[in-house]
Amino acid sequence: MKKNVLIIGAGGVAQVTAHKVAQWADEFGAIHIASRTRSKADAIIETLRDKGLDVEVTSHTLDAMDSQAVADLIRQIDAGICINVGSAFINMTVLQGCIDTGCAYIDTAIHEDPDKICETPPWYANYEWKRREDVEKAGMTAILGAGFDPGVVNAYARLAEDEYFDRIDSIDIVDINAGSHGRYFATNFDPEINFREFTGTVYAWQGGEWTENRMFEVGREWDLPVVGKQTAYLSGHDEVHSLAQRYKDADVRFWMGFGEHYINVFTVLKSLGLLSEQPVTTAEGDEVVPLKVVKAVLPDPASLAPGYTGKTCIGDLVKGSRDGKPGEVFIYNVSDHEDAFAEVGSQGISYTAGVPPVAAAVLIARGEWDVKRMVNVEDLPARPFLELLGQMGLPTRIIDSTGDHPL
Amino acid sequence: MKKNVLIIGAGGVAQVTAHKVAQWADEFGAIHIASRTRSKADAIIETLRDKGLDVEVTSHTLDAMDSQAVADLIRQIDAGICINVGSAFINMTVLQGCIDTGCAYIDTAIHEDPDKICETPPWYANYEWKRREDVEKAGMTAILGAGFDPGVVNAYARLAEDEYFDRIDSIDIVDINAGSHGRYFATNFDPEINFREFTGTVYAWQGGEWTENRMFEVGREWDLPVVGKQTAYLSGHDEVHSLAQRYKDADVRFWMGFGEHYINVFTVLKSLGLLSEQPVTTAEGDEVVPLKVVKAVLPDPASLAPGYTGKTCIGDLVKGSRDGKPGEVFIYNVSDHEDAFAEVGSQGISYTAGVPPVAAAVLIARGEWDVKRMVNVEDLPARPFLELLGQMGLPTRIIDSTGDHPL
Repeated sequence: MKKNVLIIGAGGVAQVTAHKVAQWADEFGAIHIASRTRSKADAIIETLRDKGLDVEVTSHTLDAMDSQAVADLIRQIDAGICINVGSAFINMTVLQGCIDTGCAYIDTAIHEDPDKICETPPWYANYEWKRREDVEKAGMTAILGAGFDPGVVNAYARLAEDEYFDRIDSIDIVDINAGSHGRYFATNFDPEINFREFTGTVYAWQGGEWTENRMFEVGREWDLPVVGKQTAYLSGHDEVHSLAQRYKDADVRFWMGFGEHYINVFTVLKSLGLLSEQPVTTAEGDEVVPLKVVKAVLPDPASLAPGYTGKTCIGDLVKGSRDGKPGEVFIYNVSDHEDAFAEVGSQGISYTAGVPPVAAAVLIARGEWDVKRMVNVEDLPARPFLELLGQMGLPTRIIDSTGDHPL
Repeated sequence: MKKNVLIIGAGGVAQVTAHKVAQWADEFGAIHIASRTRSKADAIIETLRDKGLDVEVTSHTLDAMDSQAVADLIRQIDAGICINVGSAFINMTVLQGCIDTGCAYIDTAIHEDPDKICETPPWYANYEWKRREDVEKAGMTAILGAGFDPGVVNAYARLAEDEYFDRIDSIDIVDINAGSHGRYFATNFDPEINFREFTGTVYAWQGGEWTENRMFEVGREWDLPVVGKQTAYLSGHDEVHSLAQRYKDADVRFWMGFGEHYINVFTVLKSLGLLSEQPVTTAEGDEVVPLKVVKAVLPDPASLAPGYTGKTCIGDLVKGSRDGKPGEVFIYNVSDHEDAFAEVGSQGISYTAGVPPVAAAVLIARGEWDVKRMVNVEDLPARPFLELLGQMGLPTRIIDSTGDHPL
């Protein structure tokens, strides 16, 4: 009996996830998609039709902040796998709904509390990891952070562990979007979540402890395949917080590429206090959260897809040694915005985030990753995931001592 | 019988106006100050006490958007002169209250409708000038735009007409604030009004017609007394709209100085749509006017006063000819932020705006400017106004063929 799949969310990433689930429908039972606004789910189903995907998909209205409602829907449709690609604010209620019903859970980003920014590291310990025992007791699988970063980059680290080194000294994850959306300014995903990543403390794991920097304080030029020389800045990111637990003796850092224009706009908004998640009071006496207004004036990331050109390069530079002999390996993927739009109607950032949770779902469906406990991606064997991703449109390449070659 | 004075407003400019009225209390009867928030008026009265001004001033609560309430208050306190230094949104209701009661009216900036930006030139014709007949019928005096710019700079143009030229070819008003408030970013007066000045079309009167530019499209370096070389940009400003009527054959332009940092912040905010006066809808469904949120996060201009250093230079470069002989004259004032704070507890921009309407009020009280009709400042003899301003703290200097000298 194939497992029914429930996709929660109806943004740009959810659209990619829905397309991939539909493309790989043979692996699953019935397909469902649920959103606070059902019409957004229906619009995604429309895009499946546009691409000639003749698969039955059912839409639902769901308040995913209500774990009881999540559990009710899971029972109603007998979902065996829940792919949570909604807002980062709903993780814990969706996870709870899965625990209550024994449904497998997959997400792509860490839980966030709308009222807090950048909590104590490791971030996963503040929310998700507190449910480890509950998940094990429920006998269900929960795979955390199975997008691209976090997700595929965690598997890249695990691949280096499995196939290259017996000792890992450093993991530097580099995320470059060398694409162009042609707008004055836009974020590649939900501005509220995007900016929240950069307004708090930048945590890295270095020398066996958490180090703290400010955003844009530490920059480094990288010379990467296809996208060339790019400046990336030490940034806070989910995967650092789990990788630092598995690779305690290694330095774990995340670097994100930014152009000068992005940094300028960000700096102006942040300096003025417009990225604050705390309400301010207008002269008329209204309480308003500035960040929500900034989000309201910025382009909807989903609207960037048509006409988005250029490529992304995301990878892990892992340094370590085997039998005492030092070495390094760069494991990476290059994706193309136009190709992503042609295939699924989304831009490349949504594509790289939305495909991997479907690969994870396929591996759960096949039993390979159905581990009946809560894990981060690096806790699972990397090769099956990465090979499947190659078939699903996110091929892995590797630069090692033998040169630049496919996985 | 001396005329009672009613000051409407309780911001940074109103504070200066209140201090000057109190300093020149011998010219007036009773002094009143009214604000939507009475405690703000009381706070200003406190600052009068701090400066040892032992004058009786009475505070009132007033909704100045309600012309009946304005008329009622004028009658209640038997005001003979109303100095409107409140928000630019209240001009027409305050003026109506004065018309209904025959009280003399003075303001310092053009009326604005909260929902509109940069209407058809000449701006005064959209609102104030439509009441010319009513003012004349009421037999009362209304002096429009009697701040510094508009106001004193209009008198500078009139002085050039009266004492230098029989033909005027161009009037270039230049406003440079070379002061430093030490904040990341701040506007020198109400951010809502300040930004509204720069988001619309820049109107100038050139070659006998209204010309249109965008803000920061046309810049020119000026070399001015005290503040030195400064870049100023062709900007839209009230006085251009009245001076163009009196000096139809001259080019009339307004130039405002901006540093690169100001322009950068402004450009980011404007490009993102954050300076819009039109509401946007947040993801939560709330309607919010972005400009009001920007105003809420920026420093209150009044808070800049302590520690504000440096000087302002505002003047008119007037070119023309007398008896066919061409010439030019630069008529200007230099003010100092620290001096202004020491004297009245406000910064220099508020000082230059808040003193002139008091000079106009004194001239009405003395009968010299009590013309019983609606006028702009250039319609009145300039020398009495400028000489009085010299005694009140805003001395005029002139650079002409004989050099740089006081008025």
